[in-house]
Amino acid sequence: MKNNRIIDALFRPKTVALVGASSDEKKTSSRAQRYLLKHGFQGDIFPVNPNRKDILGIPCFPTLSSIPVPIDQAFIMLPTAKVIAAVEECVNLAIPCVNILTGGFAEAGEKGIALQTRLARVCQETGVRILGPNSIGLINPVDRVALSVNAMLDLPTLIPGNVGVVSQSGSLIGALLSHVQAREAGYSKLVSVGNEVDLGVSEITDFLIDDAATKVILLFLETLRSPQSLKATALRAFRAGKPIIAFKLGRSSVGQDLASSHTGSIAGADEIFSQFLSENGIIRVNLFETLFELPPLMIGKKPMSGKQVSIVTTTGGGGAMVADILGTQGIELAAVPVEIVQFLQTKKIEVSGSLIDLTLAGTKAEIVQKVIGILLDSPEIQAVIMVVGSSGQFHPKLAVEPILRWAGSDKPLAVYVVPNAPFSLAMLTQAGIAAFRTPESCAEAIRALLQWKEPHSDWQGTIAPSQETENLIRQFNKSTLLEREAGRVFKSLGISIPVSGLAHSAKEAVEIGDALGYPLVAKVLSEKILHKTEAGAVVLNIKNAEELKSAYDQIICSVSKFLTEMEQEGILIQKMETSLQEVLLGYKIDPVIGPTVVLGTGGVLTEIYQDIAIRIPPLSLKQAFEMIEEVKGLAVIRGFRSLPRGDCDALAKAIVNFSRLADLKQFRVFEAEINPILVKAEGEGVLAVDGMLVLENT
Amino acid sequence: MKNNRIIDALFRPKTVALVGASSDEKKTSSRAQRYLLKHGFQGDIFPVNPNRKDILGIPCFPTLSSIPVPIDQAFIMLPTAKVIAAVEECVNLAIPCVNILTGGFAEAGEKGIALQTRLARVCQETGVRILGPNSIGLINPVDRVALSVNAMLDLPTLIPGNVGVVSQSGSLIGALLSHVQAREAGYSKLVSVGNEVDLGVSEITDFLIDDAATKVILLFLETLRSPQSLKATALRAFRAGKPIIAFKLGRSSVGQDLASSHTGSIAGADEIFSQFLSENGIIRVNLFETLFELPPLMIGKKPMSGKQVSIVTTTGGGGAMVADILGTQGIELAAVPVEIVQFLQTKKIEVSGSLIDLTLAGTKAEIVQKVIGILLDSPEIQAVIMVVGSSGQFHPKLAVEPILRWAGSDKPLAVYVVPNAPFSLAMLTQAGIAAFRTPESCAEAIRALLQWKEPHSDWQGTIAPSQETENLIRQFNKSTLLEREAGRVFKSLGISIPVSGLAHSAKEAVEIGDALGYPLVAKVLSEKILHKTEAGAVVLNIKNAEELKSAYDQIICSVSKFLTEMEQEGILIQKMETSLQEVLLGYKIDPVIGPTVVLGTGGVLTEIYQDIAIRIPPLSLKQAFEMIEEVKGLAVIRGFRSLPRGDCDALAKAIVNFSRLADLKQFRVFEAEINPILVKAEGEGVLAVDGMLVLENT
Repeated sequence: MKNNRIIDALFRPKTVALVGASSDEKKTSSRAQRYLLKHGFQGDIFPVNPNRKDILGIPCFPTLSSIPVPIDQAFIMLPTAKVIAAVEECVNLAIPCVNILTGGFAEAGEKGIALQTRLARVCQETGVRILGPNSIGLINPVDRVALSVNAMLDLPTLIPGNVGVVSQSGSLIGALLSHVQAREAGYSKLVSVGNEVDLGVSEITDFLIDDAATKVILLFLETLRSPQSLKATALRAFRAGKPIIAFKLGRSSVGQDLASSHTGSIAGADEIFSQFLSENGIIRVNLFETLFELPPLMIGKKPMSGKQVSIVTTTGGGGAMVADILGTQGIELAAVPVEIVQFLQTKKIEVSGSLIDLTLAGTKAEIVQKVIGILLDSPEIQAVIMVVGSSGQFHPKLAVEPILRWAGSDKPLAVYVVPNAPFSLAMLTQAGIAAFRTPESCAEAIRALLQWKEPHSDWQGTIAPSQETENLIRQFNKSTLLEREAGRVFKSLGISIPVSGLAHSAKEAVEIGDALGYPLVAKVLSEKILHKTEAGAVVLNIKNAEELKSAYDQIICSVSKFLTEMEQEGILIQKMETSLQEVLLGYKIDPVIGPTVVLGTGGVLTEIYQDIAIRIPPLSLKQAFEMIEEVKGLAVIRGFRSLPRGDCDALAKAIVNFSRLADLKQFRVFEAEINPILVKAEGEGVLAVDGMLVLENT
Repeated sequence: MKNNRIIDALFRPKTVALVGASSDEKKTSSRAQRYLLKHGFQGDIFPVNPNRKDILGIPCFPTLSSIPVPIDQAFIMLPTAKVIAAVEECVNLAIPCVNILTGGFAEAGEKGIALQTRLARVCQETGVRILGPNSIGLINPVDRVALSVNAMLDLPTLIPGNVGVVSQSGSLIGALLSHVQAREAGYSKLVSVGNEVDLGVSEITDFLIDDAATKVILLFLETLRSPQSLKATALRAFRAGKPIIAFKLGRSSVGQDLASSHTGSIAGADEIFSQFLSENGIIRVNLFETLFELPPLMIGKKPMSGKQVSIVTTTGGGGAMVADILGTQGIELAAVPVEIVQFLQTKKIEVSGSLIDLTLAGTKAEIVQKVIGILLDSPEIQAVIMVVGSSGQFHPKLAVEPILRWAGSDKPLAVYVVPNAPFSLAMLTQAGIAAFRTPESCAEAIRALLQWKEPHSDWQGTIAPSQETENLIRQFNKSTLLEREAGRVFKSLGISIPVSGLAHSAKEAVEIGDALGYPLVAKVLSEKILHKTEAGAVVLNIKNAEELKSAYDQIICSVSKFLTEMEQEGILIQKMETSLQEVLLGYKIDPVIGPTVVLGTGGVLTEIYQDIAIRIPPLSLKQAFEMIEEVKGLAVIRGFRSLPRGDCDALAKAIVNFSRLADLKQFRVFEAEINPILVKAEGEGVLAVDGMLVLENT
């Protein structure tokens, strides 16, 4: 119920107060009223400005409190310093929705952050709902509410459509509006969320899921302030059959440092973001134009398993460009159905290869319709692309009309119009057929559609770590656990570790060694030495007691240069293990997304090739196998050439068990790593040889 | 002189014969005459068709011979079977230029190839110059010659411009024309070269270099029939200050097989193509739109060494999108000049970070002009991008006029117009300022400009191999040379190989071994065994005569399963060499480009990561160092972390010496490989341990 009230007040206010309205056309603060009127606002407007009697012919009020009727939404355009008092006035007047244009908050450094914290407190304490601050406002073309200062509202009219937009960039909702209206198509809602002190991307998206006018939702993102709530929203959207398409700025930003002393900066935050979107069934696009050209292709569609695409073209070069780009993304064209080959032969059109080039001879409505009809009916083909040549420019009706009848078809149909043909693009877009102005956006849209997966959120999660793990960590009672202690934690999660013992004298070492059996490895255990090999603190391949004794002495001697006795926990004696491949498994907190699990081959090459797979816990076994598949360097254990296969089953289980670190109840892991985990031959398992675990400071 | 005649006859014919002209508007063959007339052809048109008296009011001739005046260019639209006879008639009439629309030649299978071979012979024997076959014709808007059947000529007028186009796709010259004319700008020439039986991409490009109206040349490529002539042409174009920009189809085609049994398919032909373009100073773009948006940015420019770019924007989101894409390509924004920061402070605009966001407050002509002026004058900045927001749509004059004064500036200035603003794009393009419709094409244009290098062709080439190398190859007298013989060839080129001897008995082996000194390696020498390790045909780390004797016996025993005695050339005894890194050096003939040299780390990982560098001989030492830099996996010998550096100088010299295989006079190498070449520590050189060389069948 409460939701309905805020949704109505936000999207369909009957009374709007424009706080800080101006009559000076040069001022941004004059625009809100002008745009509301221009685009046919049906409710009542109340400008608030103590220095004016009226603005643009509408009576002006000195204060919010002096307005004689209840206000649904207040649009605040005051100087930064006056915003909080105005919001408090809104609270007193029980105004359900406050929309703050004013900037100077969290985006403006320390002082602004403090102000925004105060604003957040007002929200929490009073329950008032705020859009912004630093929001350019919202546009609802369906109900004629243009409550924004975006200059794109100088457009003569607003065209209603079925695409909802939630944007962290205020200016770009103008660009989205501009390009789509140029095709005489439009949106259901466009909302600039600004700094998201209260109403954020997820909640607005949630509102749009319930909005009957909205069939597909676009997100323009710069960051994500609440991944967990977007996760839940994305799942709801998927179940409601409203696809979400996202464009994200910051692909090139280095992102937060996910590096440890071992792994270097190998996990760029943007890849994690992509992974997050994909796992939650949100389609990410990288070309700005695809963001607004793709929606009609997604409406009413579900993720598909096949990747067979057909291209029909009347211009060889145009079709070849799309096919070529799809090819670079691993999408190949389907074989041409025999029925089409035979039909075209009757029209003296020879089809060779997989591109269906109708040539000039085939630019006839009945030929185009017949061919597309067959393709849309072919169960083995997942999507169809029609490429329109010069007829799209000079004879838009002839070129486009035969395609229009397929609007709303179950199978995705995309049209790439090769020449400059705004009228053809408009006809198609208005009819609800996805129309593309470049071969690149057309190919990207098809790629995005075919890569679309249902939300992983449907999956129930891993089994939480046992009490044993929690107890073990409590018992160690420190924030950084090194190899032996970390190993015990990993073991408690179900990951095998080599048998070992800790020696404090050469004699003790030999006792342990004799019990374990040779060959062995000996190494010092100390928080102070991270790179043991360089420090001479490891001896490998120890074959007997005599060698073990001298290895012990040698290590003590080497490390005495760096360490006091107090800093050594002892010498670890471990079975020498062999493997087909060493692998690195990492656990990091991404500053935006939260816990992540990283898999790589470890060592210098992982860093050089950035050859890693990232997932967000909780992980399923299926995801773990996907990770193993994604790391190129692990080809060597996946059955490459004549090389022996590694135990990928055991590795996948270890990945899932490792990811359970995210499910600890009493502790939060900041960082963990197994490096290396040894992968033995099929059926022989994996072993976590070395590792560490750092708890978050609490 | 002869060139002038064909250039005039091709681009500016005074008399044109349309052979196979039709008066049926539905037929493609009716278009040529219609388009010539429509676009104001100034010369005389002679339709040739025995079944008509006149076509579109112009008298028709039964045969070419019956035309009473000399013809400059004949445009042949006959059925395939009649083309050669028509060309022969042209020869008899001494018509200098024949333009063949008709298809059914090399593009149409075996029979067509045979026909085209006959056509080629006519050219060679008679000197007649042919455009096509399978050419859609040519368009010369400057001199009003629209001699083409491309349907885009339905455009009401042709706008002359300074951009020349040479295209292997006929249909796409229409798309190029369409999009640029939509901005009320145009081309100097557009030529469809078709199957290039005679006049090809290089020669037409050569003509455009000499064409006063052409300032920049676009190539739309599907393949390259004569890389050597394009190389020479590209150098001429560069020296003439006429940049060449290329788009190439077939990025995803697997290309010809460059694989050997050792290296697998590691060198995709498209990368070689890119390398070829880059080495010859040709700018490659990957977005179709960039091809026609980039030209104004290139005119009058030279390759630059710096990579500092500034972005000025009035819309934060738009500027951020361009900056973000540039960032993914390793191009970062320059620091904002202090002068700008101070100037903007006087206007109450705070600049934080490196994006110069003028905000709404800065959308004033004098502010934009001042800021751009400072940037264009800053010697440390190589290129400037201006991002125009919604004012570009509603106030194109206000938004664009302050920018126009910088047309023709020495420093590249690119403008990205964020909203749909065709008028702004047109104003900018007409003024000669590069204007971009998407953030992606804007960023790609800047990337292409900054990566532009002068042609490597300026360099004189390697020293040809000595007579010794040629003699050695002749003396071996076979097409496949295996490791020992190949090694001797490599040594003759100046590449060190390990000292070794060939033993035919255990006794001989020990004599050789004692002379070389231990440790040693022993392996069988045979054309029949390619994978020696698997066959048990190699023994490593032989420490003394006794071990050598038993290694000899062991190898003989192992290989006896596979080889007769006749098939063994003996057992090779070699010094056991150690190294920091094993490297693969390959030499392959690309079916399009010709000889190429490939560098990789060798082994399974080169294949898995496709981590290679490719160059086209002759190679300079500078290029060899570039190759070493490009192979990511070679980071380990370039001074990565605390790892010891390898002898990159020696490796670079070995690469150059290896590339000299391309300069052999009496032989043509089909394929060669050194795998591995051992890279020792700095100053200790490299050693070609194993390799092979295959000569082309002649």
